[in-house]
Amino acid sequence: MASAPLLDVSTVLDLPAPLPLDSGQSLPGVRISYEAYGRLNAARDNAIFICHALTGDQHVVTDHPRTGKPGWWVRMVGPGKPIDTDRYYVICANVIGSCMGSTGPASLAMDGCPWAMRFPVITIRDMVRGHVALLDALGIEQLHAVVGGSMGGMQALSLAANFPERTRAALVIASTARHSAQNIAFHEVGRQAIMADPEWREGEYYAYGKGPEKGLSVARMAAHITYLSEAGLTDKFGRRLQNRAEKTFGFDADFQIESYLRHQGISFTDRFDANSYLYITRAMDYFDLAEEHGGLLANAFARSKARWCLVSFDTDWLYPTAESRLIAHALNAAGLPVSFVELSAPYGHDSFLLDVPALDKVVGGFLG
Amino acid sequence: MASAPLLDVSTVLDLPAPLPLDSGQSLPGVRISYEAYGRLNAARDNAIFICHALTGDQHVVTDHPRTGKPGWWVRMVGPGKPIDTDRYYVICANVIGSCMGSTGPASLAMDGCPWAMRFPVITIRDMVRGHVALLDALGIEQLHAVVGGSMGGMQALSLAANFPERTRAALVIASTARHSAQNIAFHEVGRQAIMADPEWREGEYYAYGKGPEKGLSVARMAAHITYLSEAGLTDKFGRRLQNRAEKTFGFDADFQIESYLRHQGISFTDRFDANSYLYITRAMDYFDLAEEHGGLLANAFARSKARWCLVSFDTDWLYPTAESRLIAHALNAAGLPVSFVELSAPYGHDSFLLDVPALDKVVGGFLG
Repeated sequence: MASAPLLDVSTVLDLPAPLPLDSGQSLPGVRISYEAYGRLNAARDNAIFICHALTGDQHVVTDHPRTGKPGWWVRMVGPGKPIDTDRYYVICANVIGSCMGSTGPASLAMDGCPWAMRFPVITIRDMVRGHVALLDALGIEQLHAVVGGSMGGMQALSLAANFPERTRAALVIASTARHSAQNIAFHEVGRQAIMADPEWREGEYYAYGKGPEKGLSVARMAAHITYLSEAGLTDKFGRRLQNRAEKTFGFDADFQIESYLRHQGISFTDRFDANSYLYITRAMDYFDLAEEHGGLLANAFARSKARWCLVSFDTDWLYPTAESRLIAHALNAAGLPVSFVELSAPYGHDSFLLDVPALDKVVGGFLG
Repeated sequence: MASAPLLDVSTVLDLPAPLPLDSGQSLPGVRISYEAYGRLNAARDNAIFICHALTGDQHVVTDHPRTGKPGWWVRMVGPGKPIDTDRYYVICANVIGSCMGSTGPASLAMDGCPWAMRFPVITIRDMVRGHVALLDALGIEQLHAVVGGSMGGMQALSLAANFPERTRAALVIASTARHSAQNIAFHEVGRQAIMADPEWREGEYYAYGKGPEKGLSVARMAAHITYLSEAGLTDKFGRRLQNRAEKTFGFDADFQIESYLRHQGISFTDRFDANSYLYITRAMDYFDLAEEHGGLLANAFARSKARWCLVSFDTDWLYPTAESRLIAHALNAAGLPVSFVELSAPYGHDSFLLDVPALDKVVGGFLG
């Protein structure tokens, strides 16, 4: 069978009305930037919506326009792949608050100046409201499935719980139904690192040609450690030195892990907006699906009729298996069909992005 | 029995000769600031040397001169306590490189200006060389025991391994024989946070009346997370809000954990020198006791005749039990008597400083 051509790559939608937000405010002039692959069938019922993670974007299978690197889930999405674009119409939208084309703090507000810190604080549910507005515009009443890892999993949970008529299935990978104190703590370190940088200028750095790059870099370094397992770091770097035979007795990056982390931090600042990092981490910290539903997680799923699949990784200490288990218990309490699997992979939280063949099987098998 | 009076509290020793360092340099004009409690007996063989942790100091049982808070191990050290000052002469010295009276980057160099980043990069073994010089000056040939938690444990390991004739016992708590890639990574985040702060001024901030307080605060926040367990954070803070009924949809410290971390960061800058933080974290990252002894940890203990005791905590993810187990295996391979216990405590790495009655029993029992 010939592969279906890619359709609708890099499209934008300008929402016709302001987007209502959990804060009580509404966001005017919202643009949603998204990509879509495969063909929407005549019944308009073969769509899969992929939700991206904190620093991810809509470039699931296309090269990133700033870094030139391949799409972040090219191994999972495509013709004949677990999320099969020969069979499904696959959509991914940049979340509001981000910086890859959808409206965020770097976008121009109605007065023609960047929103900066005037941008309203948004929530995961607000991001999902943007996704649902996109589905409305595309004439898709119900998804075949919503899929996401990490913060994408939060959106998948939120969409399937809060807009239960909009999806027949939800696949939540390496995620959680609420941010823990430790999760919040790491994000707060990142935010403080950004806001401590005098180049941040209370968020009004856009006119200066440079932003709080050092602070954002430190934020990324701290976060990056949480994405990897201790054992994975030991395997990959251990105490090996970086291009030198001996320690230098100085503060250069003697160890490979230092050089790697510095590179992760610096390269991140080329592709991501510091204010977006503040807003999106805040949305994640605010996420508590049970709290939205009277404090009982099972209540969140009361109106769901979806099939559910939860995947965790044994080395993920950011959103460990216990978090997925809590969700599985709540889905069971709500009487919903749920499959839950903990996969073994050495990469920590980032396993959902990496070469874990068992994940491919679970994803392909669940989506059918 | 009446308690012995405290002796020698807050004493300094000026070393008569430059201290040789692992870097090949030597450090002139070294002052060691220390406290000592109890009485040295006539045989001079009842001394216990306590080694402090990264941000600790010699104020084991006396109030901290800057914060006014009680000494950091007042629960463990004193008359009738597990480290019994009625029986033992208990010494703790501020490590070189630190900022509480021993020579460090904030001290004046020979030219009358602060060392700042001209201070040589030191190692754990160099700190121990300072301790041994102090023992020499005090006329103590052999300790009853060397004791330390965290970085203090590294010094205890290093002293008992590298100066085996100087102690009859070593008690190593919540520590490791080498810094892992993850350990180095967290320290590197902290260093980069400090060095990213323009107030750091390449370390030459002493004349300006203020230093890189924001950067040091971020460094402390990141490190502090690693000292606590995820479960401990959840118990202590969870997602509880700070003095408010609702989330504010802003970037204030809505959550208690945010407020707590910010306080930890800011208050740390009142009592610690940023350059000392750079140097001491570097010393810890450089620590690899096996590497000093041909790459085999058992070799490090070849000349030891000491009794050993290792203690780990089940919730310590900074230096987890597996690290202590490696040390125990090496001690076994070296044919040395070692007792090794993993204690259960909810506080993570910081358990060694907190109310863990089982630790008191182990410490008291081992020291005899």
